[in-house]
Amino acid sequence: MSGAEQAIALARVPVGVPVPEDFALITLAPRALEAGEVRVQAQYLSLDPYLRGVLSGRHMGHRCELGAVVPGAAVGRVVESRDPALQIGDTVIGEAGWRALPIMQKPRRWDIDAPVSTSLGVLGMPGLTAWAGVAQIAKPQPQETLVVSAAAGPVGASVGQLAQVRGARAVGIAGGAEKCALVKQQYGFADCIDYKRDDFAVALKHACPNGIDVYFDNVGGAVLEVCISMLALHARVVLCGLMDQYNQETRPKGPNLGPVIGARAMLKGLVVYDYYPQFDSFLSEMAPLVKSQQVRFVEDISVGIGQTPAAFCRLMRGENRGKTLVKLLDDYA
Amino acid sequence: MSGAEQAIALARVPVGVPVPEDFALITLAPRALEAGEVRVQAQYLSLDPYLRGVLSGRHMGHRCELGAVVPGAAVGRVVESRDPALQIGDTVIGEAGWRALPIMQKPRRWDIDAPVSTSLGVLGMPGLTAWAGVAQIAKPQPQETLVVSAAAGPVGASVGQLAQVRGARAVGIAGGAEKCALVKQQYGFADCIDYKRDDFAVALKHACPNGIDVYFDNVGGAVLEVCISMLALHARVVLCGLMDQYNQETRPKGPNLGPVIGARAMLKGLVVYDYYPQFDSFLSEMAPLVKSQQVRFVEDISVGIGQTPAAFCRLMRGENRGKTLVKLLDDYA
Repeated sequence: MSGAEQAIALARVPVGVPVPEDFALITLAPRALEAGEVRVQAQYLSLDPYLRGVLSGRHMGHRCELGAVVPGAAVGRVVESRDPALQIGDTVIGEAGWRALPIMQKPRRWDIDAPVSTSLGVLGMPGLTAWAGVAQIAKPQPQETLVVSAAAGPVGASVGQLAQVRGARAVGIAGGAEKCALVKQQYGFADCIDYKRDDFAVALKHACPNGIDVYFDNVGGAVLEVCISMLALHARVVLCGLMDQYNQETRPKGPNLGPVIGARAMLKGLVVYDYYPQFDSFLSEMAPLVKSQQVRFVEDISVGIGQTPAAFCRLMRGENRGKTLVKLLDDYA
Repeated sequence: MSGAEQAIALARVPVGVPVPEDFALITLAPRALEAGEVRVQAQYLSLDPYLRGVLSGRHMGHRCELGAVVPGAAVGRVVESRDPALQIGDTVIGEAGWRALPIMQKPRRWDIDAPVSTSLGVLGMPGLTAWAGVAQIAKPQPQETLVVSAAAGPVGASVGQLAQVRGARAVGIAGGAEKCALVKQQYGFADCIDYKRDDFAVALKHACPNGIDVYFDNVGGAVLEVCISMLALHARVVLCGLMDQYNQETRPKGPNLGPVIGARAMLKGLVVYDYYPQFDSFLSEMAPLVKSQQVRFVEDISVGIGQTPAAFCRLMRGENRGKTLVKLLDDYA
């Protein structure tokens, strides 16, 4: 059994955009494993926007108590096992929390020929989210126009690339010229519009002259409203995230749904948890696309568990570039 | 060829709730039929909320010009035919306008064993709308709770009854105690909640203790917002009407869609025109249900074309009871 470990606890419930002082570095005393559990040496921690809702108790009813270790997924190596299916040295992904030696129950084993960090990004939960929305819900067709917001993030980037693999035209929405350039140059989107521009709606309309056939929404708010006003006949909208309001205390009003009627559009709420039973189908499509670089990914890596709060706060301010990870151990030799 | 006829023209574009002075009684001189047309002696004119949008040019891009006859459907008998498929004396339904002797192109022939007025209501466009939403989109299952707004109207009444025929539990929403009593007593809904009550949301929650599995929205606005906040897992929402804003000059903001994500709900815009190819399938289900009185209907009948503006204004104030019709001729012997 290993010794004490470092972890990050919630010091206070964030108000608005989180700040590093909302978190505290603590030391956890070790405890013995129970049957079915494994102890993991975490290599990468995954930082994701949904955690903001958890901190306020608004994410699917989950709440992080004050003083408790902040939740989150991680990938790492099994260093102690009371699960007969997992051996010491196995690489696994699971719910961990922001800590160095998490204890996991029934983690997924990683045996894909790709960098281990991708297990938390393009070949992990964000990639599965994108695949669920594109391949299972919206099904963009050749010649159709797909628009995705937060296009520079790991979900949005994969949404657009999966659409383009299917022959559709991907138009991104992101905040600022630098992110828009990333979306076009790194991910190969046909276009990307900066929602901070005064003429955002005009520019988006110009980029989508035949309207929007598929809109994958990660943000809600004013961006969703503009996209709904441009839906083409029989459009599909995947409602996946509300980045626009994660830092707000109350839920603002939403878009008028009149255009949804006229377009005969379909809107569908997407929660990625529902698609974990299809993880193998997802990987069988996505892993070869990543290997062949038809789907590219960008990572925003901080080093050391003490950097986790600052990295999360940057993510929640939209200052990250690509999938936000915290590296605790060097990659395996 | 027949002589001059009375008709109702648009005198000015209504602002807000229409008033009778927005319309004018005119006399139309006869004109000769062209090939493919039939002249019809109208028996009933159909008054429907979608016309409000036409008067403002907001309904699917259709607009009624000033001075033109107000559009609308009617049922009547063919009195002159240049359509080889239709004989004098045939009963037909088609786009007519508010006039006594409309000229129709390719009207539908009526050969159902039911009162001819039902061709404009429970066995016509409103019934088809209800059937499309229930049988083709939302598909309520036994034990599920379906909620429908404007439940005392011809669409809403049929929605709830079709749901109950399928074993679901129908809860209506209507304005005022009298309409709610009609919905429960005439149409047999399990419950009906008055949206004008201060405690509307609490009362609706009480009537739907397990949440809303299907919501058929005819109104938009605050009622839609409350219903979206109560969606059960995997709920379906049919977006069909915006009665709440037909009389408004600008489109108000809509509901926050956060609960749609959590519920994994599906929202779908319904435009009844898309379902006319399935009219026979609709009638083959609905006509026997009407005959056996498993689906009941109520009609709000005014007499004489001069009453049409007043009847339409009552409809747009929500003061009608059941399907709004104007009777121009007595029923056939």
